[in-house]
Amino acid sequence: MHFNKVSRSVITALVRIVGNEHVHTNEEKLKHYGHDETEDLSFPPEAVVRPNTAEEVAEVLRICNEHHVPVTPIGGRTGLSGGALSVHGGVGLALDRMNRIVSIDERNLQVTVEPGLITQVLQESVAAKGLYYPPDPSSRGSCTIGGNLAENAGGPRAVKYGVTRDFVLNLQVAMADGQLIWTGANTLKNSTGYDLTRLVVGSEGTLGVITKAVLRLVPLPRETKLMLVPFAHARKACEAVSAVFRAGITPSALEFMERDAIDWTLEHVEGIPVKVAADVKAHLLIEVDGNHADAMMKDCEAIVQVMESHECGEILFAESPADKDALWKLRRSVAVAMKANSVYKEEDTVVPRYALPDLLDGVKKIGARYGFRSVCYGHAGDGNLHVNIIKGQLSDHAWEHELPKAIREIFQLTVSLGGTLSGEHGIGLVQRQYMDIAFDQNQLALMRGIKDLFDPHGILNPGKVLP
Amino acid sequence: MHFNKVSRSVITALVRIVGNEHVHTNEEKLKHYGHDETEDLSFPPEAVVRPNTAEEVAEVLRICNEHHVPVTPIGGRTGLSGGALSVHGGVGLALDRMNRIVSIDERNLQVTVEPGLITQVLQESVAAKGLYYPPDPSSRGSCTIGGNLAENAGGPRAVKYGVTRDFVLNLQVAMADGQLIWTGANTLKNSTGYDLTRLVVGSEGTLGVITKAVLRLVPLPRETKLMLVPFAHARKACEAVSAVFRAGITPSALEFMERDAIDWTLEHVEGIPVKVAADVKAHLLIEVDGNHADAMMKDCEAIVQVMESHECGEILFAESPADKDALWKLRRSVAVAMKANSVYKEEDTVVPRYALPDLLDGVKKIGARYGFRSVCYGHAGDGNLHVNIIKGQLSDHAWEHELPKAIREIFQLTVSLGGTLSGEHGIGLVQRQYMDIAFDQNQLALMRGIKDLFDPHGILNPGKVLP
Repeated sequence: MHFNKVSRSVITALVRIVGNEHVHTNEEKLKHYGHDETEDLSFPPEAVVRPNTAEEVAEVLRICNEHHVPVTPIGGRTGLSGGALSVHGGVGLALDRMNRIVSIDERNLQVTVEPGLITQVLQESVAAKGLYYPPDPSSRGSCTIGGNLAENAGGPRAVKYGVTRDFVLNLQVAMADGQLIWTGANTLKNSTGYDLTRLVVGSEGTLGVITKAVLRLVPLPRETKLMLVPFAHARKACEAVSAVFRAGITPSALEFMERDAIDWTLEHVEGIPVKVAADVKAHLLIEVDGNHADAMMKDCEAIVQVMESHECGEILFAESPADKDALWKLRRSVAVAMKANSVYKEEDTVVPRYALPDLLDGVKKIGARYGFRSVCYGHAGDGNLHVNIIKGQLSDHAWEHELPKAIREIFQLTVSLGGTLSGEHGIGLVQRQYMDIAFDQNQLALMRGIKDLFDPHGILNPGKVLP
Repeated sequence: MHFNKVSRSVITALVRIVGNEHVHTNEEKLKHYGHDETEDLSFPPEAVVRPNTAEEVAEVLRICNEHHVPVTPIGGRTGLSGGALSVHGGVGLALDRMNRIVSIDERNLQVTVEPGLITQVLQESVAAKGLYYPPDPSSRGSCTIGGNLAENAGGPRAVKYGVTRDFVLNLQVAMADGQLIWTGANTLKNSTGYDLTRLVVGSEGTLGVITKAVLRLVPLPRETKLMLVPFAHARKACEAVSAVFRAGITPSALEFMERDAIDWTLEHVEGIPVKVAADVKAHLLIEVDGNHADAMMKDCEAIVQVMESHECGEILFAESPADKDALWKLRRSVAVAMKANSVYKEEDTVVPRYALPDLLDGVKKIGARYGFRSVCYGHAGDGNLHVNIIKGQLSDHAWEHELPKAIREIFQLTVSLGGTLSGEHGIGLVQRQYMDIAFDQNQLALMRGIKDLFDPHGILNPGKVLP
């Protein structure tokens, strides 16, 4: 693909669309919009444009498409695969002004939102009406629905409720050529033509820019029960995960944390009253939700039985809301604690859940061979293991040149276990070099064909997803 | 598109792939495979081929693609949109020999199946292991998983569990050019490249032929409660549907039946001990499932409150398994009873659920204007209303030439209410002339582009989905 720079005349056209005060070219702003939470990468766009409406987005795309200028959609910049980085320069399309809840439809349990809406704001707004939007990435306080849709984000509650994709009814999308289309209908069921909605979800801004989303809601469960279960053997913890479902119970969260993940987090984050015994190697954090306390108690008892039969240690029940918040804070702060502790790379491996112990063992063995330490945690109920590779004492040379081989081995192992590269972070920039492990040339050619169909000039988030 | 007839040399090639005994050209067989449950339509293929493996399917496609011969995949022939009809002749690809359960993975709650497997056989096989595959079209005793996937079939349990699409993890697909690909991975979460899996689901055999499917299972709920609720006003029944969810309850089924649907079924089907009072105009059939009887009882009590506040009549609780079976038999037999009673057309309208009363009223008004009677029933919890248009005394001329205008008006109303053409039957042959109501030229061009990418010669199920 040949791209042009953002010329004077393009700037003039962009200013005409969004107004002078919403086109930025000063270095500080470009830098601000040039990074997300992916390692320490920085790829500033040449200009930042902050549209206010779907029509403005479409018009920006039309101009950029005509001038062969790359456009990178930018949400909350909390991504972990570099999806929002302007790796080819061009226009950074910041969607932060488009953060409105268009309507909450209580009668149909639907909500229509703009892409820049913060996920937690959505959750709290609908919870005030007794409704629930379950997908909850750890970054929910700052990530946006548009980014969640683009990456098909998950989070702890996916194990019971599904990922972002499972809550999308209909999307308004600005296409590369400046059309605005809706992908589906505002209905719970839809067998009408090809599923453009789910083709756009998870396409990481490479097929179009989501300008509105109609999302499905469910009734808000009235209660939750939460327990933290220690294990002396990480493998036993992983095996217990599978056994919970076999006992007929679907928890609303089933999280795994290696000992290091907890230790580092407790060191980094204040006010979490958890003590870890010396022999503990891993924890499961298990939540059950529902409307009927007695029934939930019975499920918890059954879970405790499963845990004990897998040689767990003493289970900590979170009794008060404050206790629950503390445990969730512990879990949600792991990534931040990692980041504070060392340079690291995070891989988002996912396998069928029973393969988790084998994946964990394999990662440790690969680490031993290449000489790196890893801290693993994640959504064990979904088989989604975040592998944090710690730079620690590794030389810059090994980090740059040897580590990619180790990561390749980790992904090869993941795929050999029936899994794939990313469960919820997306491929973005940093995983695309490994796409050949998950897909052969035929599959990649299909994806490339879809990309060319939607975006013939390749202006939409170039350098992402496809190798 | 230009298609060729099935020549002698093509037959020879097909015989070489599947064996002489699995290539049929006699009239009786062609006729057998030339109809489904869509009206009284009959479109026999020129030859029926019954492959036994994915590789054979792929090879058949390769031959047909080379010779520009149309291929129509054929499952259980229970479809209601004509998806399995060989409207351009060519090869009828019957998948009935490929009906194996490849494996039930109890540790990961997954099952791998071939497309010709009967849905009910799958459900009973996994239930024997305490597992549950919820999608359950009324035809589940004879429809196949391949057909369910192709049409994105639903059924009563979709309201709680989702449709076929929501249970697919990974598909093996034979492409038009004879490649075999897998669309994804056997994982619960997947953010790795474009979602080819859900692009193929619901594409009605026009993008590829599904040769294996990896499906997600959930723990089998231990109990169900079932009640039949009569209403003197159909609109009140529809309004009660929305109110159940607002009360915080998600039933495992929430079905609507107009009085006529029940009357006709009781007349046609024996052994259903239900009496309908004179003033009853509609019924809701409501099921709750779960593991804890006390909690379910509380939900039922809350549902009863909602029903009574919407002026329901006397609620019939199904106490015994036999009582439950009888009520489900009543519901599942409506379509068959319709068919036995009169020539009819069935539309599969779907709207946001609160719009159901408006849709129902509108359908009746359109019927009054065009002089036809309609019987409506369906999955009210999903806003999915099956509109059965009865030929009755309508002239053949009106049926052929006036009715399409009325159906067009019904779909225009559906779309104006935020809905679309099909909730679970697919577009197939009989609805494609109405696709322009749901989609504009831009949207249709995208779908057409996807079709051309997957199937450049247009051999896969031509004459379906796209207008």
